[in-house]
Amino acid sequence: MRPELLEPPSGDVRDAVERALREDLTPLGDLTAALLPAGATATARFVSRANGRLAGVACATETFAQVDPAVEVSWFCADGAVLEPGTVIGEVSGALASVLVAERTALNFLGHLSGIASRVAQFVERAAGGARIWDTRKTTPGLRSLEKAAVRAGGGHNHRGNLSDWIMLKDNHLTGMSIAEAVAAARDRWPARTVQVECDHSEQLVEAIDCGADLVLLDNMTPDEIRHCVAVAAAAEAAGKGRPLLEASGGITIDTVAEFAATGVDLLSSGALTNSAPVLDIGLDIGA
Amino acid sequence: MRPELLEPPSGDVRDAVERALREDLTPLGDLTAALLPAGATATARFVSRANGRLAGVACATETFAQVDPAVEVSWFCADGAVLEPGTVIGEVSGALASVLVAERTALNFLGHLSGIASRVAQFVERAAGGARIWDTRKTTPGLRSLEKAAVRAGGGHNHRGNLSDWIMLKDNHLTGMSIAEAVAAARDRWPARTVQVECDHSEQLVEAIDCGADLVLLDNMTPDEIRHCVAVAAAAEAAGKGRPLLEASGGITIDTVAEFAATGVDLLSSGALTNSAPVLDIGLDIGA
Amino acid sequence: MRPELLEPPSGDVRDAVERALREDLTPLGDLTAALLPAGATATARFVSRANGRLAGVACATETFAQVDPAVEVSWFCADGAVLEPGTVIGEVSGALASVLVAERTALNFLGHLSGIASRVAQFVERAAGGARIWDTRKTTPGLRSLEKAAVRAGGGHNHRGNLSDWIMLKDNHLTGMSIAEAVAAARDRWPARTVQVECDHSEQLVEAIDCGADLVLLDNMTPDEIRHCVAVAAAAEAAGKGRPLLEASGGITIDTVAEFAATGVDLLSSGALTNSAPVLDIGLDIGA
Amino acid sequence: MRPELLEPPSGDVRDAVERALREDLTPLGDLTAALLPAGATATARFVSRANGRLAGVACATETFAQVDPAVEVSWFCADGAVLEPGTVIGEVSGALASVLVAERTALNFLGHLSGIASRVAQFVERAAGGARIWDTRKTTPGLRSLEKAAVRAGGGHNHRGNLSDWIMLKDNHLTGMSIAEAVAAARDRWPARTVQVECDHSEQLVEAIDCGADLVLLDNMTPDEIRHCVAVAAAAEAAGKGRPLLEASGGITIDTVAEFAATGVDLLSSGALTNSAPVLDIGLDIGA
Amino acid sequence: MRPELLEPPSGDVRDAVERALREDLTPLGDLTAALLPAGATATARFVSRANGRLAGVACATETFAQVDPAVEVSWFCADGAVLEPGTVIGEVSGALASVLVAERTALNFLGHLSGIASRVAQFVERAAGGARIWDTRKTTPGLRSLEKAAVRAGGGHNHRGNLSDWIMLKDNHLTGMSIAEAVAAARDRWPARTVQVECDHSEQLVEAIDCGADLVLLDNMTPDEIRHCVAVAAAAEAAGKGRPLLEASGGITIDTVAEFAATGVDLLSSGALTNSAPVLDIGLDIGA
Amino acid sequence: MRPELLEPPSGDVRDAVERALREDLTPLGDLTAALLPAGATATARFVSRANGRLAGVACATETFAQVDPAVEVSWFCADGAVLEPGTVIGEVSGALASVLVAERTALNFLGHLSGIASRVAQFVERAAGGARIWDTRKTTPGLRSLEKAAVRAGGGHNHRGNLSDWIMLKDNHLTGMSIAEAVAAARDRWPARTVQVECDHSEQLVEAIDCGADLVLLDNMTPDEIRHCVAVAAAAEAAGKGRPLLEASGGITIDTVAEFAATGVDLLSSGALTNSAPVLDIGLDIGA
Repeated sequence: MRPELLEPPSGDVRDAVERALREDLTPLGDLTAALLPAGATATARFVSRANGRLAGVACATETFAQVDPAVEVSWFCADGAVLEPGTVIGEVSGALASVLVAERTALNFLGHLSGIASRVAQFVERAAGGARIWDTRKTTPGLRSLEKAAVRAGGGHNHRGNLSDWIMLKDNHLTGMSIAEAVAAARDRWPARTVQVECDHSEQLVEAIDCGADLVLLDNMTPDEIRHCVAVAAAAEAAGKGRPLLEASGGITIDTVAEFAATGVDLLSSGALTNSAPVLDIGLDIGA
Repeated sequence: MRPELLEPPSGDVRDAVERALREDLTPLGDLTAALLPAGATATARFVSRANGRLAGVACATETFAQVDPAVEVSWFCADGAVLEPGTVIGEVSGALASVLVAERTALNFLGHLSGIASRVAQFVERAAGGARIWDTRKTTPGLRSLEKAAVRAGGGHNHRGNLSDWIMLKDNHLTGMSIAEAVAAARDRWPARTVQVECDHSEQLVEAIDCGADLVLLDNMTPDEIRHCVAVAAAAEAAGKGRPLLEASGGITIDTVAEFAATGVDLLSSGALTNSAPVLDIGLDIGA
Repeated sequence: MRPELLEPPSGDVRDAVERALREDLTPLGDLTAALLPAGATATARFVSRANGRLAGVACATETFAQVDPAVEVSWFCADGAVLEPGTVIGEVSGALASVLVAERTALNFLGHLSGIASRVAQFVERAAGGARIWDTRKTTPGLRSLEKAAVRAGGGHNHRGNLSDWIMLKDNHLTGMSIAEAVAAARDRWPARTVQVECDHSEQLVEAIDCGADLVLLDNMTPDEIRHCVAVAAAAEAAGKGRPLLEASGGITIDTVAEFAATGVDLLSSGALTNSAPVLDIGLDIGA
Repeated sequence: MRPELLEPPSGDVRDAVERALREDLTPLGDLTAALLPAGATATARFVSRANGRLAGVACATETFAQVDPAVEVSWFCADGAVLEPGTVIGEVSGALASVLVAERTALNFLGHLSGIASRVAQFVERAAGGARIWDTRKTTPGLRSLEKAAVRAGGGHNHRGNLSDWIMLKDNHLTGMSIAEAVAAARDRWPARTVQVECDHSEQLVEAIDCGADLVLLDNMTPDEIRHCVAVAAAAEAAGKGRPLLEASGGITIDTVAEFAATGVDLLSSGALTNSAPVLDIGLDIGA
Repeated sequence: MRPELLEPPSGDVRDAVERALREDLTPLGDLTAALLPAGATATARFVSRANGRLAGVACATETFAQVDPAVEVSWFCADGAVLEPGTVIGEVSGALASVLVAERTALNFLGHLSGIASRVAQFVERAAGGARIWDTRKTTPGLRSLEKAAVRAGGGHNHRGNLSDWIMLKDNHLTGMSIAEAVAAARDRWPARTVQVECDHSEQLVEAIDCGADLVLLDNMTPDEIRHCVAVAAAAEAAGKGRPLLEASGGITIDTVAEFAATGVDLLSSGALTNSAPVLDIGLDIGA
Repeated sequence: MRPELLEPPSGDVRDAVERALREDLTPLGDLTAALLPAGATATARFVSRANGRLAGVACATETFAQVDPAVEVSWFCADGAVLEPGTVIGEVSGALASVLVAERTALNFLGHLSGIASRVAQFVERAAGGARIWDTRKTTPGLRSLEKAAVRAGGGHNHRGNLSDWIMLKDNHLTGMSIAEAVAAARDRWPARTVQVECDHSEQLVEAIDCGADLVLLDNMTPDEIRHCVAVAAAAEAAGKGRPLLEASGGITIDTVAEFAATGVDLLSSGALTNSAPVLDIGLDIGA
């Protein structure tokens, strides 16, 4: 997998690191580092303490660059790398004070983003190629682009980046409009955009297929219901109609993802990938 | 518990909400909301779907204010409130388009911060008054002050806000200096500041007590080791020495917190409270 | 047409107005307004001096709000309104100094954005429903979302908001890959996203249709070539293949748009709509 | 002409480029560039497609620096250079993905600013040394300093940078004050600042000369009226009075500028130079 | 004196207050205010403890508005008001916690800016109308526009706002150019701008007058030398040449300002007005 | 003394320099530098004109870096260095225009911050080791972290960085609570934080000692009163109670500091150190 694909926009990285360092250092700086002997240097290694998937390397690099450009940073792994307990991820070398000032911020980025990548990778593995794993807009406020990049690092894919990306018609949008009318309005207003329809039951799916939706969200359905919907869509396709992509959401957990993936649905989405992934335990081992 | 205590600085709330809305709406705004009939309005209720503790009300309020100041927002619960499935937290009323644009951002804040408050509250309950629950600097980058406020909403307490708060002497700071020398240097440089020493075993604790540390971190000790340290500190106090506050860290989980709390240690800290708490499930039920 | 559809995200409006006022007032404020007699007030009317289409009302409102919240602002027209010489667009009333300080900034927004809306409206009128008018990413740096909203106010539609919106495969992306391989890679990486292919001749169009592209850019073709492509696409559709939307770009001007629109192509795009539209002449008539 | 004179403040360049890249890449980055083969590189040349004058080089350089500092950028022309169809302006070399990500933003800056410089250069050429070409405060919101630098690149001059620069007394400032009283108040409040008076007819000019205005705006006058004013000013000078600089504004177009310039007026200003200049067509030719 | 004249741009006020509150509250807010009883309110009065001149009212108002819009703020004095020990300047009323959080920030603005206004007022009084008191660019970094407004509040006047305002030719600019050449170049490049020349002795003054400089800085001259320069300028004027404004700088203190003002020079400038003025002692008396 | 201890967080330095350059250059840049001959270069030296203590080197370095990274900057002194008239502090070498553009901003930082360091150093010298010199929160708005670093450069120490640092109980916090209750509440809410109590007379000191305050502010007491308080604290300590650190504030000036320092009090604080220190006279001598 190519690193370029996995990285968030560099401007977002810079901004996020600036905010993180400011909140950790204002107003007096690192009181404890100020006690260190002048000229003390250190070499330190980022080491994984757990199994998982790496993400956040650009943020960690930027953290050291902003704290002290003289610190040398080298990475032995890239975003997306498989980690085991003991995997040495990278190495930094420079003034001990600079290393200590940057340590927690760099680790907070690596841990948070690798936590997301790792959980995504677990889902991907369990889905076993039966369906793709998709994120949602349920991200940590202010970290959308970084977390979406971490999802890619974990082998997952990105759903809508935001409300400006494509049209998603839910119940509340359909007040006084049929699905067909709403899809037509969307096509009219926003040519060439993906139009998605949320369906609670297979009758709505039929309606969505008939009006040519590109993508249908099967919301909170059981695997059996989803299998039924997959069959409905296949029948429609056989009848010469377009077949929308089918996304299932609701109840997708690490325990259920394999069963859902086996239904024939195209995409499985879960907010928990980004808003409930525990941190991946990565440490910084500091030597003399 | 008083709401004023629980809220983060209002400037941080404003900035965080601005970033969150920008990342969800740039560059074209909400494509789907643009299809709604003109003049459509809605009343919607924030409802908890789970047991937990509320946090993030200020962020949710600010989200609606930034999207559309004409939306009326009223809250039936404040930060720190106990939530059950079905608890109605608050109500918003205004243009349907505005409600839908703000919905996900407001929920992302409420879910993330209430998730932290809820996990903290579980730890506090299990600790049963035997020790206080403390957060760490292991927070989500850019959300430090909001997450620390959520910890307070959950009944926990705040450790160092950042590196500028107090002195914490770890292994890496003690290169070429004894604990006593380092504490003396800290007192000399930073009068009246809390000085904390990290100890791996009780011999270091004795050293820290002898040089008058205010606070000692007992790092990665078992409950038995901690109990021994508590006894060591008590003996020192009986001998007329000052007794530092004792913090235990490492291995504190929802399953072990009660046992650790029963050791007599003063404070139990865990990075997982802020960096690994799953979101609390809160929804917005939208009516006509 | 509904105003909600036409407005840019309010955060972008606030930021743009802040920048504009800062650059017009730093560091000493309005030297001339400082000479006005204390207590002088004024009522002033925004009046169109030309035929056109209105855009930028939210920016003008925000300008007065930031300069002096006590200035009363009322609008008789909304974004998208047809303007003629003499059309009274809105009225402001308050301290004369505040009105004069805000005047140029408000007019710069109204003039620039209405200029875009007006040019778009001319294209739309000439196209006469034969094809939709689409903008591009050729916008003024920093004003993307405001200019895209102005395009909507003029009756046009929005192409990609930015590089993050959908996939657009041009020559330079196809190094070492066939169109079919590139489209397949795009579908694989970015499920449910619009995939667009740029074609220089109809052979490429056939290739793009065969691999199921959603949208094809017919680049720099003559009306005759476009007509041929429209026929090719129709034939493919008749043969049971999907028919992509067809966009023509290159050489679309106010003089040629009608001819291009009559070719049967779906969408006509032109960078000149946003990067070369002259300002619409709108003035502020200030009374006592 | 020296490049240093032509460039805008570097802080403004950095900010403008940051905003432009953010709006083009948020939140997911360049979806299409992510499909490129790893390690692909390119050399590309900025080439003019039209006759004109170059501006915006600092912005283009900064765009590549922010996207990828490893891209090598070299320029064969500086701001102010005369361009013809085919003129190779500069060359960039580096990762193909980086070049494609930066391309549109760099071109948007170059095209917009060179468009302004080119129109200014046309006016300057037609004026043939008979009067100087002056810009106004009618600039694109947020781009004032960049556009004013582009005016200099085109051989024009800068009028007031903003409201804080000098005093300009218009009708609305003269409520209840004579010109003489207003000029005296301005001299009193703001010593050593340029004081300008707007005049609609030559009687006002006499009044402005008598009270020692530094600069007079002859507003919306015909060439004949302006010639009369020039004579009035000359007569006053011959009579030992100071002669203000005379600026004409209103109706100055590429077709009329020569006639206005021949009247003997000192300065000709036009908002259209900055707010209505079409983009200059510059492309990026990408090689392997 | 009119308040409108004295106030800095409102955008600068907002930004400065945001920064000041952030640096005083990040990351945990006011730890002590969090201990106050819920519902406690207070009324408090800003009272001068010294003789001086008021400045900074807009900043203090904005501070309370940002901390808590529910706090009521009313002012009995405006910027520029004469203060004595005991003068009640204004009153705030609202939640005690809000008042205490805002107190120091509001006082820091009022004290710093009133300190500048007060020192300026002393200089103005001593100058006794014999010369105007001018500030310089020697301001506190980041507070230029606020401090320049405070100078106006003290009865002083504003020299150049910044490097973009007018031309000031010093020794270092005259390498390889005569004064006459440099002034001519300035007139050529920047029509209608004030051109100032720094002179160390009266021969240079003659040269500056001969080439028509608008303003001359007499640098580090004694009162006698200045008197000589005033005579030189008067003689030139009598001879029909233009007379530049004369500014004296260097050695102007509260003790010498009267003597310098009596020389006939037009303007006396001192960096100490803005960069060395002690704070004016203003307190906040808090009642129940 | 180690430089690392003295420097403010680098993010704060970057932000402060950006703001300072923007306010000095917007919107047209340095009009005068634009007249310099192309290719002119200069070497210039920062030279002290007075006795004092250096601070602000990081800000000056950053100023040149932002204006023109090609300017070479080298320092012969670090923050905290003792300066005499004629001390050469550092040297810059590069384009003359760049040196002149950066000059005033760099000097404003150096002068302001060195002014603070110099005054602090005077206090430290007079205190002669008898008490430490402490700053306050009475800093220039927006420059807190830079000024606190300057205090360290002068040999002083930092009191609370901000309201989030530790608890300080003043009169207004004690409404309806005794000192003992308030201290207990503070210990309860904010474990391990410094708790400070403000006392107006020695009875309050006794109360503060009895409840275990860490730090007591003796507010506006005479040296005799302070001596009495020192004795009270010593007696308490002899009686086996903890002895808080004693801070005296109010009336501490360069003339009185020695007398106050001789009382046996631990810390002497004065707002005047940061909000009323005159600038230190440092110049930039520019050679060819």
